[in-house]
Formats: sequence, C-alpha cells, structure tokens
Amino acid sequence: MRKIRILGIDPGFAITGYSIIDYIGNRFNLITSGAVTTNAGESFPDRLFKLNNELENIINEYKPDAISVEELFFNNNAKTAINVAQARGVILVVGRRKGVDTYEYTPLQIKQAVVGYGRADKIQVQKMVKTILKVEKLPKLDDTTDSMAAAICHAHSAKFAEKL
Amino acid sequence: MRKIRILGIDPGFAITGYSIIDYIGNRFNLITSGAVTTNAGESFPDRLFKLNNELENIINEYKPDAISVEELFFNNNAKTAINVAQARGVILVVGRRKGVDTYEYTPLQIKQAVVGYGRADKIQVQKMVKTILKVEKLPKLDDTTDSMAAAICHAHSAKFAEKL
Repeated sequence: MRKIRILGIDPGFAITGYSIIDYIGNRFNLITSGAVTTNAGESFPDRLFKLNNELENIINEYKPDAISVEELFFNNNAKTAINVAQARGVILVVGRRKGVDTYEYTPLQIKQAVVGYGRADKIQVQKMVKTILKVEKLPKLDDTTDSMAAAICHAHSAKFAEKL
Repeated sequence: MRKIRILGIDPGFAITGYSIIDYIGNRFNLITSGAVTTNAGESFPDRLFKLNNELENIINEYKPDAISVEELFFNNNAKTAINVAQARGVILVVGRRKGVDTYEYTPLQIKQAVVGYGRADKIQVQKMVKTILKVEKLPKLDDTTDSMAAAICHAHSAKFAEKL
C-alpha cells in the first residue's frame, strides 16, 4: 500500500504549528505534533534561527516525504503579516535544503480538502481534523491543529493527483 | 586602524542587491557589489533557495564582519510585501547560520546616516552614496545602490557606537 509521510506546517514567528502525519492507502496516522515557539525577548534573527534549527531537527528525525504549508494571506496587522512571512521564507528554504518537496495551499484549498467546503469556519475545520485523524483531543494550540489541516489537504491532493 | 567589512543587503525575491564595503578608520572602500536575481519561472521555494545559496557563497568568499539589512515597511502591494518578507527571513537566517552579526535599520535611519536627513529622496541618497564611496558610476540596479546605503548606515552607526 502506498504510504506518504507529510509534515504539515502552520507558519509563524512566535508559534509555528507542525504535525507529522502518515497517509497509508486512504487512512491517516498521526505520528507526532507540536509547536516551535520563540521568545519575544530574543532578537528577530535569533528567533528565525531557532525556528530553522528546530524544523531541521524534526525533518532529520521524522524524514517526511513532503511538506505542506499554508499560503499567506494578507491580514489587517501589517507588522504581524511581515513577520509571519519572514518565518515562512525560512520554512520554505529549510525544506528545500533538506531535499523535501514543499507544497503550498491556500486557506480555501485546505478548507475544501478537510471540510469539503471552502468557506468553512475554524470550528468546522477543527471538528473534521479530529474526526479524520481519530484523535480524542485536539492540541492546545490552534496552530498545531492548523498544521494538521495542511497535512490532510496535501494527502487529499496527492491522492487526487495519483488518480490522474 | 580599525577595519570593519560590511555586507549591505537590499532584500527582495526577484532582485536582492548586495555590496561588500570595508570601513577603515573613517574611509570607505567598495570591494564588490551586485545583485542576486531569481527567475519568475521557478517555484518560490526554489527562488528562495537560490538566494540562500548565493548569499552563502558571498559570505564564504568575502567573510564580512557584519551584515546590514534594511527593515521592511509595508507598501501598497500586499503580495510583493509578503514575498519580500519571505526573502528577508531567509537572509536573516543565512547570516545567523554563518555566525555573522546582522543589523537592521529603518529607511529613516539609513537616509539619516547617508544624507543626514531622514526624509531625503532616492536621488539624494544615490548622490551621497556615489560621493561617499567615490565611485564614478552607480550600479545599474537601484537595489545594489540601496545595499550600499545600508552598509554605509551600519558603518556610521558602528562608528557612533564606538565613541560611546
């Protein structure tokens, strides 16, 4: 049976959610999940460096076949958007340096893949993630749950691509 | 006489201007300058990876003591701002990975340091860069000239810091 191991990432500079999900046949298996957090007291380059290093460790340990990252959309807080984008640039290069294919999905694509409806709200997405991954409790941090949704989206897209 | 070698960078995803400037005593010596350009036909992670690799090569070859990068301010084009920010995140981590201290300056600080007037326009900055670095002709790309201005700003700030 075909197996793909996906690293889902919800990018951030303070909190980056991640999850490692195996997709075997058409079943999901959550291997691990968590978040890389960085300290506001440290310099911004140091925070990005910590993110870089922890993601490298995760990739070295779990050896994902693919990375799935949500695309950034512009929000009202320009400073936050800029800083999240800076973190996201780091994430894309870590994947590329480690030779792992990286895929980007829009929030719409992720909601469509997880809930079947592109305009689903956060609660609906979280419920479906819980059901699809058969977990009793969702992670404390929404960022981690969002990373699971990104991974599921890639699994469904990959599955779809296979059929073509 | 105290010498500091500065890598000035004007961040971008399509064009990243760079310059290597030695600051000896209170004289400037332009060692090299140019731009890393990436191809719109390539994937975004590939473009960031190329930027990452070329900056690593520049750091390996010229061994700067410090990197000076302009801070990002929000402009009207959200998509461009997000993508420049992603490139900038990569730049900050390359410096940190190579163990080179990285400094960030606002456009206002750079204009103040180069022209002596924070609201100077682009042409005034370019003229002063030409005079300060004693170059006959400015680079073709404004991005390269902007990287020189960032490097000069750091030299002046470092000089100032020395006096404290």
